[in-house]
Amino acid sequence: MKQFLDENFLLNTKTAQTLYHDYAKDMPILDYHNHLIPEQIAKDVTFENITQVWLYGDHYKWRAMRTNGVDESYITGNKSDYEKFEKWAETVPYTLRNPLYHWTHLELQRYFGVKDILDGKSARKIYDICTEKLQSKEYSVRNLLKMQKVELVGTTDDPTDSLEWHKVINGDNFGLTARPTFRPDKAMAAEDVAGLNAYIDKLEGVTNLSISDFDTYLKALKQRHDFFHENGARISDHGLEQIYAEDYTDAEIKAIFDKIRANQVLTNQEVLKFKSAMLIYFAVWDHEKGWVQQFHLGALRNNNTRMLTQLGPDTGWDSIGDFSQARQLSKFLNKLDTEDKLAKTILYNLNPADNELMATMIGNFNDGSVAGKVQFGSGWWFLDQKDGMIKQMNALSNMGLLSRLVGMLTDSRSFLSYPRHEYFRRILCNLFGDDIENGEIPNDIEWVGKVVQDICYFNAKNYFEL
Amino acid sequence: MKQFLDENFLLNTKTAQTLYHDYAKDMPILDYHNHLIPEQIAKDVTFENITQVWLYGDHYKWRAMRTNGVDESYITGNKSDYEKFEKWAETVPYTLRNPLYHWTHLELQRYFGVKDILDGKSARKIYDICTEKLQSKEYSVRNLLKMQKVELVGTTDDPTDSLEWHKVINGDNFGLTARPTFRPDKAMAAEDVAGLNAYIDKLEGVTNLSISDFDTYLKALKQRHDFFHENGARISDHGLEQIYAEDYTDAEIKAIFDKIRANQVLTNQEVLKFKSAMLIYFAVWDHEKGWVQQFHLGALRNNNTRMLTQLGPDTGWDSIGDFSQARQLSKFLNKLDTEDKLAKTILYNLNPADNELMATMIGNFNDGSVAGKVQFGSGWWFLDQKDGMIKQMNALSNMGLLSRLVGMLTDSRSFLSYPRHEYFRRILCNLFGDDIENGEIPNDIEWVGKVVQDICYFNAKNYFEL
Amino acid sequence: MKQFLDENFLLNTKTAQTLYHDYAKDMPILDYHNHLIPEQIAKDVTFENITQVWLYGDHYKWRAMRTNGVDESYITGNKSDYEKFEKWAETVPYTLRNPLYHWTHLELQRYFGVKDILDGKSARKIYDICTEKLQSKEYSVRNLLKMQKVELVGTTDDPTDSLEWHKVINGDNFGLTARPTFRPDKAMAAEDVAGLNAYIDKLEGVTNLSISDFDTYLKALKQRHDFFHENGARISDHGLEQIYAEDYTDAEIKAIFDKIRANQVLTNQEVLKFKSAMLIYFAVWDHEKGWVQQFHLGALRNNNTRMLTQLGPDTGWDSIGDFSQARQLSKFLNKLDTEDKLAKTILYNLNPADNELMATMIGNFNDGSVAGKVQFGSGWWFLDQKDGMIKQMNALSNMGLLSRLVGMLTDSRSFLSYPRHEYFRRILCNLFGDDIENGEIPNDIEWVGKVVQDICYFNAKNYFEL
Repeated sequence: MKQFLDENFLLNTKTAQTLYHDYAKDMPILDYHNHLIPEQIAKDVTFENITQVWLYGDHYKWRAMRTNGVDESYITGNKSDYEKFEKWAETVPYTLRNPLYHWTHLELQRYFGVKDILDGKSARKIYDICTEKLQSKEYSVRNLLKMQKVELVGTTDDPTDSLEWHKVINGDNFGLTARPTFRPDKAMAAEDVAGLNAYIDKLEGVTNLSISDFDTYLKALKQRHDFFHENGARISDHGLEQIYAEDYTDAEIKAIFDKIRANQVLTNQEVLKFKSAMLIYFAVWDHEKGWVQQFHLGALRNNNTRMLTQLGPDTGWDSIGDFSQARQLSKFLNKLDTEDKLAKTILYNLNPADNELMATMIGNFNDGSVAGKVQFGSGWWFLDQKDGMIKQMNALSNMGLLSRLVGMLTDSRSFLSYPRHEYFRRILCNLFGDDIENGEIPNDIEWVGKVVQDICYFNAKNYFEL
Repeated sequence: MKQFLDENFLLNTKTAQTLYHDYAKDMPILDYHNHLIPEQIAKDVTFENITQVWLYGDHYKWRAMRTNGVDESYITGNKSDYEKFEKWAETVPYTLRNPLYHWTHLELQRYFGVKDILDGKSARKIYDICTEKLQSKEYSVRNLLKMQKVELVGTTDDPTDSLEWHKVINGDNFGLTARPTFRPDKAMAAEDVAGLNAYIDKLEGVTNLSISDFDTYLKALKQRHDFFHENGARISDHGLEQIYAEDYTDAEIKAIFDKIRANQVLTNQEVLKFKSAMLIYFAVWDHEKGWVQQFHLGALRNNNTRMLTQLGPDTGWDSIGDFSQARQLSKFLNKLDTEDKLAKTILYNLNPADNELMATMIGNFNDGSVAGKVQFGSGWWFLDQKDGMIKQMNALSNMGLLSRLVGMLTDSRSFLSYPRHEYFRRILCNLFGDDIENGEIPNDIEWVGKVVQDICYFNAKNYFEL
Repeated sequence: MKQFLDENFLLNTKTAQTLYHDYAKDMPILDYHNHLIPEQIAKDVTFENITQVWLYGDHYKWRAMRTNGVDESYITGNKSDYEKFEKWAETVPYTLRNPLYHWTHLELQRYFGVKDILDGKSARKIYDICTEKLQSKEYSVRNLLKMQKVELVGTTDDPTDSLEWHKVINGDNFGLTARPTFRPDKAMAAEDVAGLNAYIDKLEGVTNLSISDFDTYLKALKQRHDFFHENGARISDHGLEQIYAEDYTDAEIKAIFDKIRANQVLTNQEVLKFKSAMLIYFAVWDHEKGWVQQFHLGALRNNNTRMLTQLGPDTGWDSIGDFSQARQLSKFLNKLDTEDKLAKTILYNLNPADNELMATMIGNFNDGSVAGKVQFGSGWWFLDQKDGMIKQMNALSNMGLLSRLVGMLTDSRSFLSYPRHEYFRRILCNLFGDDIENGEIPNDIEWVGKVVQDICYFNAKNYFEL
């Protein structure tokens, strides 16, 4: 019987333990995609209490609490921070077998040295211990990142963002690089013409351009893409249900844009054509500048209108969709490849039923020009847990080269999420450990250790040219 | 080497054994959804032989026999009951790794004390032993249910059903509650206008209403819904390929109903609108009365026209479909939730590729009002086996709260299917046992034991307000 | 710690070892579907070096090399055979966990006695050893097949093929039967009217018929079907994204054919109707002659236009699609079954998300007339690896009868792929071994051994009437 969460947590063989402790554990972290708030890093804030850094904004925990029958007032409502924490603590024992159970206790141990199990009884004590520490400077966000050896954070930013905080962070030169990511979802959201127009108006302000035709719209966005590049961005990102790859002509897109600016509702077909065109433009710019483009595919968002109205997006009302992926993805990537404009690309997939599709799709465009040019990204969001990670690693292993994977990323909004890299590394080492001990791969610990280190750190370093 | 089907069957760790034997095994059974025939319970029938209770109506066994090359005369045809049994016995050794192999021997052991392996050689002896027992009063259906500590059976009933037998059962007060379930599939089957009209005519007879317009149709169905409620029903059920969630107006539905009564063929679009509307009406009534609504999604039925014509539905010619599920399911549940008319809901999914979709969909509507309000139901039909159950439990664990699951149900037509609850419990305990022994959850046997008991019994008791 | 690739490779229990060594290992091989070139067998060629037999035409290896950043000149380009081999050798260590790693070393051991690990350092030595052996007569293709006890090869042939080499092989009577397979993909490829016309012209030459109307087209194809039968063919094969099952009339198909011959572009609907009709015609002929029909479903082919133009099809630019499968498959099989024209059928599925769909679909048409009449074929192409095979075997076990599976086939273009049968057998035995040792099936080694031998050999022998 192994102890819960001991030093060999998730490492079920001697070989796995060697791989983790001797090769993986001490690698620094390149967290190339997340949703941290750069202002908080720039100002090196500290938090008043653990609720603020741990529960505010964490829609994973919120969903678990709601499923457990906790009233919204304790989740996003007006209850006190301690009352909210207590309700979370009471929920934790019901999350057995959910990744939240592991993340919770990993984070308490790794950041705060707390080894107790969180529940209703231990809530007060743990709240006080963590809160006291958090109020000290050693627990400022920069120090939280240092504790976990984070060398890079890739934030997620709107094209209109000033990137002022990234400049502060990078100027301070304290061992962390912050790279903005160009995420222009709003710039192609033509299903909501009013919202898109408001966005274009905002873009006018940022660029000092009067955007009344499509060419100027492109010019403005390109200007921001350039600006991001000047400020260190080397990655773009898109959150999509599926890739849009309708045929279109330039004239059609110009006419659609005129309708948008005239505040006319678009047909479905027009929306799809517009999105398809925008995706191509962004992709071409990414290729021109040698960026990596990321696509997060498969989420069905904002399912609960009542709660969306109340709380806004990203508050826990999203789920996994069953969209058609293969044909359009192929068409889109092929169009770019045919014109030699396909940038390095990472596909993140939210529906595990599509894992094998994704793991084979990338092979269609890996042409030898760059090792691992098109990547099937690590388990994402709902799949960012042990089973999800294993499924992604197995699909990629079986149908591609796991050895070329650029590894883990948190995709998180929380400064306390970094033990997820540890979680990933343990799972990775355990897979290799099993294979070696079962005689399915040779007992060449040096080579496998190197592969593990590549996946944990060096592949990303090379791929993102850090 | 473990013995086949010994007391620790499927329990691969000491911890799993403790959890099963000390916590799970003795819990009573709440079988809230099945297809038992209430008349047989009311009359407390006994069976002439094991073929009648075991092979008649069991399309799982029939499919296996057909795949094994057994002629239909031995399955649903005119061969003698013993000849049919013998062919089944000869097929059993070919079902290794199929759940039938486990179910068969579990049922022989648990009900009849037979520990031999069933095959062609043992057929005669086992037939005679079981048949002799079955003819005795100790093996009447009520006693079969008592042997397995069944406290509740939730049968599946048409709105036109008299529910007379449920009254007898519940009046007899012998420790078993029989609850009818309102399953109005036929009342929305507008793809077959003639069949639907025949059904409406039948409904006229039962309600003493002349149903010539849609309002009266609703009135008649509502009357039956009320009648079911008066007779103990607290659950509805729908067997659907996918949720129908087309937009419609009341005027459209009224017009469609007029076409139905005029025996005019409907367009596909009209059929979808009609079904979509009916689903909403039923759901609203369920909410008004505080019922639980169940949706069985994903079956592709009646694939073999030749055999359907010969034998009718539910005779083994159904399979798993690949329908789009997410968008419509979200739209339907959201429409109800927006109007605060979403009843407690259980989604049963037949295509395991959609497990993760389902496990995340329920989170969109779990709003804290009731613990586990929207449920992802246990592995169903083709998925009601070890792998299928594990996949369902893992998806629910990873993306929701397994601890809030309302547990197992047989969904069976047979009085001998109750060891499937045991099967489920063993698998459940084994998962928790592995986690504890691997150090993935703390060795807190009391808490995990409580969670196991909740899943086996108490969650359902609370959820169905028994 | 097990040794890599020792005699008990993949056999993790004593029981698995017994099953493999005492029952499975020595069974001959019936490779009823592959892409070997019959001329090479007829002429009993030897190869100049290992690159020619091992890397030429092996798009699995090519994809791995490209993903690893190897330039195309080393893959399909003008580098020397040794340089190509060296690049492959350097790639091998990066393929850990990919089936290529196992296949590579299995093939080196089994054919050449080479037990070293292939990498950049061992490349030269291994190249020389293997090349020397390959140049000797003991390593002619016939001897390579004999080494692996191959009794049957089922090649894949176009209806216009002369089958001359099959005659030579079978006439030589050296212990190997070569059966052609009727694969008329080109005869229904109406999406490319010019290509189809060129194909029809070729068919005119082979049949001495002037094909200007649909009836003559059918007559010509039927003539070839007859010719194949006379030359030993008993199997057909179709490579399809999904089954086409549109409704059509004979008049429509005749009119579509006239458009084809007039070189007019077809509408999508016409293409689908034409393909649907052709599938039915071929299926009826297969049934008339008592053949087995095979359908390979789910590949999304030719995704990379640039590379397709450069290298042609089947060079590594294909992937897994997410097509709708269930409804059309059901409709097609049902149409045939209704008219009592359903031949024995094998469905091969490329997207593992559809495994359970397939495993249940076959049950709809297994009517007892032949044991295992409709088969869910073994893991194919991207799924022809340990996880893929296990998933296929588990789905089939859970929802059908694994015991009736007709077993493994290489589907390969290489004479060195036969250890994949060994790979399959080890995995199969390991599954049964685990089940026995876990007490999930009885320890009746004789019966399980018989089932294993059936799956490895006898089921196919009976099914294909060899």
